[in-house]
Amino acid sequence: MAGELVGDSVIVPDMTEGSQLYNKGYYGYPRPGGGLELELLEALYLVECAKLQVCLDGKTLDHAALYRRAARSVNGLQARYLVYRDLKQRGYIVKLDQGDFHFRVYQRGSAPHNSQAKHWVLAISEREVFNIASLLEKSETSQRTRKDLLLGVVDEEGDITYYTVEGAEPHGLASEVPTKAEGALIDSSVLVLGEDADRLYENGYYGKRIGPMLQLSLLETAYLMERGALEVRSLRSGQRMGEKGFLSSARRAQPDFDMRMRAYKDLRSRGMVVKTGFKYGTHFRVYEGDPAKHHSRYLVHVVPDDYSTVWAEISRAVRLAHGVKKEILFASSGQELSYIKLTRVRP
Amino acid sequence: MAGELVGDSVIVPDMTEGSQLYNKGYYGYPRPGGGLELELLEALYLVECAKLQVCLDGKTLDHAALYRRAARSVNGLQARYLVYRDLKQRGYIVKLDQGDFHFRVYQRGSAPHNSQAKHWVLAISEREVFNIASLLEKSETSQRTRKDLLLGVVDEEGDITYYTVEGAEPHGLASEVPTKAEGALIDSSVLVLGEDADRLYENGYYGKRIGPMLQLSLLETAYLMERGALEVRSLRSGQRMGEKGFLSSARRAQPDFDMRMRAYKDLRSRGMVVKTGFKYGTHFRVYEGDPAKHHSRYLVHVVPDDYSTVWAEISRAVRLAHGVKKEILFASSGQELSYIKLTRVRP
Repeated sequence: MAGELVGDSVIVPDMTEGSQLYNKGYYGYPRPGGGLELELLEALYLVECAKLQVCLDGKTLDHAALYRRAARSVNGLQARYLVYRDLKQRGYIVKLDQGDFHFRVYQRGSAPHNSQAKHWVLAISEREVFNIASLLEKSETSQRTRKDLLLGVVDEEGDITYYTVEGAEPHGLASEVPTKAEGALIDSSVLVLGEDADRLYENGYYGKRIGPMLQLSLLETAYLMERGALEVRSLRSGQRMGEKGFLSSARRAQPDFDMRMRAYKDLRSRGMVVKTGFKYGTHFRVYEGDPAKHHSRYLVHVVPDDYSTVWAEISRAVRLAHGVKKEILFASSGQELSYIKLTRVRP
Repeated sequence: MAGELVGDSVIVPDMTEGSQLYNKGYYGYPRPGGGLELELLEALYLVECAKLQVCLDGKTLDHAALYRRAARSVNGLQARYLVYRDLKQRGYIVKLDQGDFHFRVYQRGSAPHNSQAKHWVLAISEREVFNIASLLEKSETSQRTRKDLLLGVVDEEGDITYYTVEGAEPHGLASEVPTKAEGALIDSSVLVLGEDADRLYENGYYGKRIGPMLQLSLLETAYLMERGALEVRSLRSGQRMGEKGFLSSARRAQPDFDMRMRAYKDLRSRGMVVKTGFKYGTHFRVYEGDPAKHHSRYLVHVVPDDYSTVWAEISRAVRLAHGVKKEILFASSGQELSYIKLTRVRP
């Protein structure tokens, strides 16, 4: 089939060829006067598949030449083209969107003439900036318009990973009995020695048993001190530490201590048991009950609501979480705490 | 058995009890006048196992009290105690070392009276600083003294991971044929379009095929430009880029570009095919030959020779590498490049 490059579109003037393309793959839009108008992305794909020949001023543009032209007019062409191409190769009907998203994708078996699209799709390069506020907003828009949000994230070698994005309200079943214990600050952790160790662990799964001792994290210590359930003394001097003094040393050791603390409290208030996620590269691993009886279900990473990083960091975090069979939640710590869940999927 | 705390040691005065402890587990050192002198770490362990009672001024010190005392005199007590305790529980004979290392460990079945120790052991807390120069030095000392170097790294919850450390000289079998190609710079990668793409890939496994195109990384581009095998044009303007101009834009995009480049060249000169290790959180993944026929054997992370980070970062990197069944090498980029390999082991 033959098309003509006109501005940023490719026009297929022949009515029969045009309707064939439209009817087979829902490419482009039929023109009021007859024929079909294709977007550059669609034309590129059809050229790659040898289903279309594009001419300009009587000369044929090959894929490389058309790609060069498209790169000048389509922002983030590479990610968009790769995701578009991949979804087409998987047999989906993909329409370009001019609004908040890049594509609309239809459920297999349905098409633009008989149903609504199932997914909004964003094509993202791993070099792009991840901004949690904007992702939350897109996730809400998707929910409001009753479509699933699908992200196609393209890494620097062109491999694509797909994620669904959805809001999450995690909760667990852990309850606790108020208790009273004494701990000793040694280096940068708090050790509970003797009988208090067992009580504290059994009444809320605080700390980590290390031989005959219980080791509390800085967050656990601050949380228990605030509730009046723990008294801390310096191991070396034997002196009692005030809550204020402890907090300021915790903040020195962990500059984002307060942000973590907010999420720690919120998760605890949801009945979950919260432990460090350090070995998985996130802030928390979270249990729905007794850690001895459950595997941790979630990894939770807390970020400020104006947080930005490269997408590469996010996909690494999701990859790591899935590698250990856990779900990953990103908690946005703004005026309220919102959780979103990214799940790797195979579309 | 009864011991008496004297300074930083525990003395078991009874000759029979002393030799029993020494003969059974090679604890402590027999005193010239009779009896046994234990180090605090050994005494702590024996108290935890209820094999020893320690007194001071006629009063018994329980484990918690003895631990509090030990924390005042032993640097990094927690990591040392946990590693010592763990190795003992695994049935090893462990002697404290006063030199460059923390412990000497004997092969199962051998003992101080009939053989040399098999391992030097360092007990390290994940909060401690990892310094590649000092680790290289320790690794060389171990080699010179014909012992294996074993690290016991204690995470913030008291879990211990063991690593062996050894020098490495990786090499591969990839050869290449000089070629000549043209690439186009788009965003921050270089695309090779048309026939050059196949040639470049086949003659050295450069780039990553993406549909009909080949995408080169910044390192690959600079390496090929330096060898006169690649010419780069700006995709938008069509203008040819000089090597200098390309290098300075690469350095802007990747501040540690030159350090990576040194390692890239060294690995290439060793016959290896080098690709980005980004998705594994390291600089490179490295193949011994055609990436289509081999899995990458190594992940390589390059650090300046004066590089320091917390141990936690290192153990995360090793964990990730083992999770994908690869070996991890840290390359120290000083006057020469040295590689060390950390391998997770179960002692």
